Amino acid sequence: MVQVAIMGYGVVGSGVAEIITTHKKKLFASLGEEVYIKKILDLREFPDSPLSDRFTKNFNDILNDAEIRVVAEVMGGINPAYDYTTKLLKAGKSVVTSNKELVASKGAQLIEIAKNNNANFLFEASVGGGIPILRPLIQCLVANNVKEIAGILNGTTNFILSKMINEGMDFDSALKLAQDLGFAERNPEADVEGHDACRKICILASLAYGKHIYPDNIHTEGITKISLKDVKYASDYKSVIKLIGDVKLLDNGKIDIFVSPMLIGKKSQLANINDEFNGIMVRGDCTDDVLFYGKGAGSLPTASAVVADIMDSCMHIKERKHLYWADSNNESVLPYNESRTRMYLRVNTPNALDKINKIFGKVYVIASDEELAVATDLMKISQIESNLEKLESEGVKVLSKIRISDL
Amino acid sequence: MVQVAIMGYGVVGSGVAEIITTHKKKLFASLGEEVYIKKILDLREFPDSPLSDRFTKNFNDILNDAEIRVVAEVMGGINPAYDYTTKLLKAGKSVVTSNKELVASKGAQLIEIAKNNNANFLFEASVGGGIPILRPLIQCLVANNVKEIAGILNGTTNFILSKMINEGMDFDSALKLAQDLGFAERNPEADVEGHDACRKICILASLAYGKHIYPDNIHTEGITKISLKDVKYASDYKSVIKLIGDVKLLDNGKIDIFVSPMLIGKKSQLANINDEFNGIMVRGDCTDDVLFYGKGAGSLPTASAVVADIMDSCMHIKERKHLYWADSNNESVLPYNESRTRMYLRVNTPNALDKINKIFGKVYVIASDEELAVATDLMKISQIESNLEKLESEGVKVLSKIRISDL
Repeated sequence: MVQVAIMGYGVVGSGVAEIITTHKKKLFASLGEEVYIKKILDLREFPDSPLSDRFTKNFNDILNDAEIRVVAEVMGGINPAYDYTTKLLKAGKSVVTSNKELVASKGAQLIEIAKNNNANFLFEASVGGGIPILRPLIQCLVANNVKEIAGILNGTTNFILSKMINEGMDFDSALKLAQDLGFAERNPEADVEGHDACRKICILASLAYGKHIYPDNIHTEGITKISLKDVKYASDYKSVIKLIGDVKLLDNGKIDIFVSPMLIGKKSQLANINDEFNGIMVRGDCTDDVLFYGKGAGSLPTASAVVADIMDSCMHIKERKHLYWADSNNESVLPYNESRTRMYLRVNTPNALDKINKIFGKVYVIASDEELAVATDLMKISQIESNLEKLESEGVKVLSKIRISDL
Repeated sequence: MVQVAIMGYGVVGSGVAEIITTHKKKLFASLGEEVYIKKILDLREFPDSPLSDRFTKNFNDILNDAEIRVVAEVMGGINPAYDYTTKLLKAGKSVVTSNKELVASKGAQLIEIAKNNNANFLFEASVGGGIPILRPLIQCLVANNVKEIAGILNGTTNFILSKMINEGMDFDSALKLAQDLGFAERNPEADVEGHDACRKICILASLAYGKHIYPDNIHTEGITKISLKDVKYASDYKSVIKLIGDVKLLDNGKIDIFVSPMLIGKKSQLANINDEFNGIMVRGDCTDDVLFYGKGAGSLPTASAVVADIMDSCMHIKERKHLYWADSNNESVLPYNESRTRMYLRVNTPNALDKINKIFGKVYVIASDEELAVATDLMKISQIESNLEKLESEGVKVLSKIRISDL
């Protein structure tokens, strides 16, 4: 029997307990031992839970229990999750987590602590919920140099954009619907401003390139400014607008990483990922494009990834899984100004084409009606920005600009 | 340093050698040791290869070399691959393979031999080429009861169907193009008759349900009878025709498994997998649908999966990966006659509707022009077959019948 504990009995934690209880036989068959939930840490009371006798409000009941070998941290947030996880790893217990905030901001430290204490720190559930992505990336794709990872990493924003694209809803109505259906929080900022996606692309980048990429100064642009006009013009350009977390390793060794809405060609696999689903494309030098698709959130999908990590930890009680990245200060991250892209521009007057051509060079005209929408050639963000300043100084109002993907 | 050998220097074997040579640094970083190719078995001569000094024509040079710990079997076919693999495993060496024929027909035996000799027998590359699927299935989705797996598992037939669907080519022209482009063999039978897909769905089923499912008596239907008329009527039904390997666990414990062309709704993720790409959908009870997409064949994609297995074997030299299924005599496989489906039918006269309604009960009329295309309700194959006999006896010629998927 392997004894485990769960910290946090919210959406994910209760799912973890449910799966371990209802899938007992399946887990036993794989592990050859029973997985037994010995303690659950939560400040709330759950008198009606069938596991009510396992609850504790005292973290030390888990830390000091030598029989507990693996702990699922599914509380969320940095504090006290970081403190607890550190103490557990130092006590030689393995910790698995769905907490992307924790991994994105403290991953390098926790991996190092795990290594020094011969314990495992696993976090498959922190990216893509129930979609297998981290383990395939480090194990199955180990023989590839990863050229690029591009993902629809946030279900809330993908749901909103899908409603705008497929049903012509405006942003506010789509957000309200997402909130009513439970896909979006009452305070949706972390989702709609791209911060959630940023944490996830940073975790993927750290794994793929072996050094911690911190989210703090990564260019992160959300979807609040996307209008139905943009959605329509994108469609005229045979594209859809998706919120993409993207990371590429450039030839000069720099890491080009950002979160931004992008125009994605309708034939791209990423364009067909709709509603609350996530999709992550990994471009390997041997495999070419490989794509992983599924539900990126939700109680049971996310919990099933946490339980998979628990199982993996149970199978590797005495040895460490190979999962490592070094700490860094983001010194290899390309300044966003130097990132190169084609850009979709929408301006307030169809008469601006001559001015645009003069400043940007030749552009592709997507639409010209009461407004003008164009696609520029590939150029640095700094160049685009200075061109836009010139354009504005000549009286043209730029209503929106969105990166164009070549995926 | 971990010393390895490669058996077979064809498309995949030369790719394996290339990746180990060109990705030396990446592999070293993951393993902490060099992967060194000590021997390559092939009856041909490769004097110009940079590895020309490693070639041997004598299998015993590999078998009897105690320094060689891991062997990649990429010869294909059953003989002598089965004999060689058996001997290597008995000698305590781990074997990794891309050989789906070997795994589908001898997997249970080889897994057992590996287990008894504390060696690993891994075969990620045998399904989906470079797409990570087996490891995610057994590791990441371990906390799921797998309800169904449905996959586009053969790139050749998907290429042919894509050309028929998207460019209106007929089967023969599309097959010829596939042959000219190197996607199809001169003798395309194993692909177009579904045998290749059958081996792969059997491997997936064996892993998912823990007992060996042999391809021999699994219903396997290819795509040679699909006409452009069917493609058009499918489109009228908002569907595309794909060759699907499908396995479901029924409530009564029976395994419903087959390979067949199917009408797939255009909104399904599987419908958007085009050209030579593969896609595999796994429906877990916790994750819901998860899909894996990428190149299912080709030298470097397949070889990168073989190298990933080599790496995994190198990391687990002294212990076995958990990968097991028991032998069986297919006793749990549902007789195909008892499989239930909706069926697309095309008959030679639009006047047959009354007769069809009388025999099949109410059907959905897809098209009625010089022919008639309908979709039946859900019923057993045996029922459909006896209904079709009645229909033919009333003078209606059935031009085609294709399963309709609910994916």
